This record gives sequence, C-alpha cells and structure tokens, in this order.
Amino acid sequence: MRIVLDAMGSDTCPDPEVQASLEAAELFGDEIILVGPADQLEKKIIEIDSSYKGVQVVNATDAITMNDKGLALALKAKRNNSKTSMAIGMDLVKNKEADAFVTAGNTGGAMATAYFRLGVIPGVERPALTSLFPVKGGHCVVLDIGANPDCKPEHLAQFAIMGNIYANKVLGKNNPRVAILSNGEEPGKGNELVKAAFPLIAASGVNFIGNVEGKELFGGEADVVVTDGFTGNILVKSSEAVAKLITDLLKEQLMRSFWTKIGGLLSKPAFAEIKHFMDPGEVGAAPLLGINGLVFIGHGRSDAHAMVSAIRAARQAVSSNLLESIKDAIQQQITRV
Amino acid sequence: MRIVLDAMGSDTCPDPEVQASLEAAELFGDEIILVGPADQLEKKIIEIDSSYKGVQVVNATDAITMNDKGLALALKAKRNNSKTSMAIGMDLVKNKEADAFVTAGNTGGAMATAYFRLGVIPGVERPALTSLFPVKGGHCVVLDIGANPDCKPEHLAQFAIMGNIYANKVLGKNNPRVAILSNGEEPGKGNELVKAAFPLIAASGVNFIGNVEGKELFGGEADVVVTDGFTGNILVKSSEAVAKLITDLLKEQLMRSFWTKIGGLLSKPAFAEIKHFMDPGEVGAAPLLGINGLVFIGHGRSDAHAMVSAIRAARQAVSSNLLESIKDAIQQQITRV
Repeated sequence: MRIVLDAMGSDTCPDPEVQASLEAAELFGDEIILVGPADQLEKKIIEIDSSYKGVQVVNATDAITMNDKGLALALKAKRNNSKTSMAIGMDLVKNKEADAFVTAGNTGGAMATAYFRLGVIPGVERPALTSLFPVKGGHCVVLDIGANPDCKPEHLAQFAIMGNIYANKVLGKNNPRVAILSNGEEPGKGNELVKAAFPLIAASGVNFIGNVEGKELFGGEADVVVTDGFTGNILVKSSEAVAKLITDLLKEQLMRSFWTKIGGLLSKPAFAEIKHFMDPGEVGAAPLLGINGLVFIGHGRSDAHAMVSAIRAARQAVSSNLLESIKDAIQQQITRV
Repeated sequence: MRIVLDAMGSDTCPDPEVQASLEAAELFGDEIILVGPADQLEKKIIEIDSSYKGVQVVNATDAITMNDKGLALALKAKRNNSKTSMAIGMDLVKNKEADAFVTAGNTGGAMATAYFRLGVIPGVERPALTSLFPVKGGHCVVLDIGANPDCKPEHLAQFAIMGNIYANKVLGKNNPRVAILSNGEEPGKGNELVKAAFPLIAASGVNFIGNVEGKELFGGEADVVVTDGFTGNILVKSSEAVAKLITDLLKEQLMRSFWTKIGGLLSKPAFAEIKHFMDPGEVGAAPLLGINGLVFIGHGRSDAHAMVSAIRAARQAVSSNLLESIKDAIQQQITRV
C-alpha cells in the first residue's frame, strides 16, 4: 500500500510531516511518499534518521498555503503543470502510483485540487467534506461541513449513502445509524431543505433514524449526521469555539486562588482526558467523499501523532475498499431511482 | 409598571413562578400579575407570605404545556375564548392593562400566542426569537434562533435592525457591533441567503461588522449576530450540548481517582463560575422581537432567580421604550427603501 503525505500542509510544516512519514513507514511497514521540496525534505529526514528507508520523497517546488484563495488558488489546483505538493501528490493517486493522499493543508485548496485532478465519482452530484465529531462514547461522522454551502435535497441523500459506507467500512460501525441535523427531533421539523431531503434519505436504504438536534448528536445517538455545508461548517466551528471558551474560562478561574491552583494541579489527569477528547490528533483526518480517489484532510494544527493517525485512517479506507464500495452504492442508487 | 408572569411556564411550575412573583414585587416595588389557576396560586402565595401584597393573581384555567403542538397548540393560541395562561396574560398586554409578558413555557406556544393575539409591528415581515449567548466578556444577542426556519434576505436585514435596538436599549451597548453568521469571515463567504443579506444589512444603518464565525461570536467580537431560524436553532442547541458534554466528561473524569476527587473539590469555585457563566438564570429571558407587544421567553429550566432576572429584562425593555424604538426604526427603514 502506498500513501502520499503532503509535506507542505500543516501550520508548522514540514517538520511534523517528515516525522510522521518516518514513523508511519516504520509502524505500518509500507512506503510513505512524501511530497514537497525534495532537497529540504531529504536533509530533514537524514537529520532524524541517517539510514532512513521506507520514505520516498517526490519533489514539488510549489505549495498551496493558508493564504491562497480565489482564482490564484483555483489555478494552482487546476493547471496541468501545477507544481504544488497537492497537485503532484494527487496526480500520483490519479495515475495509480499511490492509493491515497493525506494533507493537513488548506481545506479549500485540497477540495479544489481533488475536484480538478481526480474528478467526482460517476453519479455523485456533489462531493462532501466530512468531519469526525467527538461525541459521548465515540465519534460521529458529520457531512457536509463546508464543501457545498447551498445544497439540494438530492445532495443530502447522497451524503447519507456515502457517510453510511464510510462509517461502516472505515470506522467499523455495524449498520450505522444515519440522521439528518434539524431544528427539532420530530418528523416534519426542519427547514425546506431538511423536509424535502427526509423522504429521500428514508428511501435510500440506509438505517435512517430521522431528525437529530445537537443534544442527540453530541449524546452519541447517531453514527452519521448529514447536513448542508453551510450549517455543517457553522456546527463544527461553533462547537470548537464553545469547547475552547469553556476550557479557557476554567483555566482562568483555576488560576485565581492558591487552593483552586492546587485543585487544578490535582485535576490535571482529568483535564488531560478532556484535551485528549478534543484533540484533532485522535481522529487524524476525514475524507472528501464523492471524489474519484481517496483524499484525507486533517486539521492544520496537526502534529506528527495526528498525521500518523491520518495515515492510519487512509490505510483503513484503502484496505476496506471504501472507494469501490461508494461507487457501487451510488450506482445502486441511480438504478433504483 | 406592570409585568405579567405566566405561572404555568417552567418545567417545575408553578412554584418557581410564585416565588419569583413575590421576590420581584418586593425587589422592584411594582405589582406583578401572576396568571394561572387562581385558587392554587393564592394558596401557595399565602403559604410563603401570609400578608402578601404586590402580587395580583389573574385566573387562567388552562395552560400550554411542553407536549402541546400542531393544530391543538395553534387553537389554544388563537381562539378568542382561550383560557391558557399565555392567552390571558398576553391579552392583558394587548388591552394595555400590563406592559410586558414573561414566560418560561413552551417557546412555540408563546410565539404562536403572541403572533395571534398581539400581532406583528407594522412593516415587520417576520418576528424573531432572540437568545443571549454567554460569550467571552459578556453576552451576544443572536437572532433568529427558531421562529423562522426559512428566511429571506430582507428578514435578516430586519433582524439586524431589531437586534441592534435591543442591544442598545435593553443591554446598554453603545453602537452595537452587528454581524451575520457565516461559514467564513471574508466578505463574499456564505450561502446564497447570507450573500444576499450582506448588502442589505450593510445599507440598514446599523454598525455592520460583516461576517463572523463561531470563533468571533464566542470570542465576544460582536454584540448582535443575525442568522436564519434554522441555523440559529442548531447553533444554540449544539452549543448547549457541547458545553454539557464537556462539563459532564470533566465531572466523570474527576471522580476517577482519590487525588482528582480532591482536585475537583478544591476546584469547586472555578466550576461554580463556569456553571454561573452558562446558567440561563443569569440572562433570564430574551424577547420575541417584531411582535407588537413585549414578550419575553425564558428557559424551561428557569428557577425563581432566573425568573426575577427575566422580569428585570422585561422592565428594562419597558422603561427604555424598546417597542416604540423598534417601531420607529422599522418605519425609517421602510421610508428609506
């Protein structure tokens, strides 16, 4: 199995990527392809492990940064002769020289590059960006979290089909409980989009449990939650912001007196558990579903540990045949309709 | 000033309401009108304070409960001879026998009753349900959080105008910073609704600071954030769910060892501060804006303390002339367009 890791993705690239590629090659016993400025990467690799093997460096002289946007980003993503690490890395997947691509870089850049270079699975109307939410007792797949700010009911039905396969194949959930995010639990609740998508998802063959609100989502009552990319994006960013606000406030309050400081020190294992719970490194990365190739996008704050987790998630997708399964499910849906 | 308190609203009604009416009458020196089953309420009042004064009980033999929905709820809200505490209480406001109505009851029931009995302010296209979010350094007004799951750009522009006046008049914010919730900070980000509403809000005369995401909202960078009722509802419920998940998880982790238990005990003042921060009682209640009368809706979990805060918020709205100010602002908007 050959996984490509974008060396120029994370906020502190390429050090975490170099570290992760060596660790992953060692851990999984497969070659990792690291894409980025070859001279710099090889130098760093040798600094860490002079007798390195298992990591193949592929040269890419350009990169998409967090500042790239608009037309400049689109051109970097689309041009045949683009030299960005994302373009060169995804071309390896396209040309069957690698099985999956992993990046902790600019999400919009990865989506655009994937769309132009790998294209979408035949029959898929819109690819979706997924996220794994930490919830009570595990994780919940939420999609779309930002690829499509405006969705049609048919898009949500396809998100349900793709999310269902991902939860089953990659996360190992048996008969995943699929829900739609709404402003009330009862059937009939929702905006026009949700109300129109509800019967389509119900007829899509997934184990549809209907509407969920935040309480059920974070309570771990669903395995897959579908929503439009606007609402999903607000959900993921607001949840992160609330979590940060509470933990920051608690830290601040704990520093206010001698006894609460002592209390805070003694409570450290509990706080570490919370941090662990909210750590993007636990999840690693989530896939762009609907793209005709395996592309995983991790958090920009990812460290080497998070990237090894991301590579693990990508490997799991390859070995479980995620892409072929989604293709089959979409074909079945088209035949049924 | 005469404030009406719905005795049959909160999850544990009418005890917190009875307690709150007595406390508020004492605290503010004005008569509180308590609406509900008169015999029961008077008996409870005498139990607490045999020489009570300051609370006037108005009889209402029916109530809207948390289980009421659909047509049954609509009929309870609309019928001329409705005997629910909400209907009778709001009729007092309509007939100028009281200045404002406060309830901790069924939100949908309060919205429907207000809509049918008080109507909307001339020129207002859609009334909006507001919420006061605890954010870094204070509170942020978010609207709509559920009255209108599907909105048009013009609705959001009116929400901005009404929210601006509320933040200024009732919360005392000088030149409130008004923002629109979006999936990116940059102008041009958003779904179709946000992109169409953006120029309308910019032209509405409020201090418009553009798009905000969860980070800025919870970071306290806006005083008023407008959104459609579907997204707003997801936002408020998910934020509550995340906060609960984190605090539950922390409590659970703190119970795992002797030292973390001690740490938890010593940290109690800090946790109390967090609880205080997230307590609906701190805010009391938020208004239905756009209704032709002052209606405040508090959390179903409200205790007597929360209801006294709710009455304080309603009094502030009365004394600052909130309703007339909104009417004027809407008229100005209509003249300008």
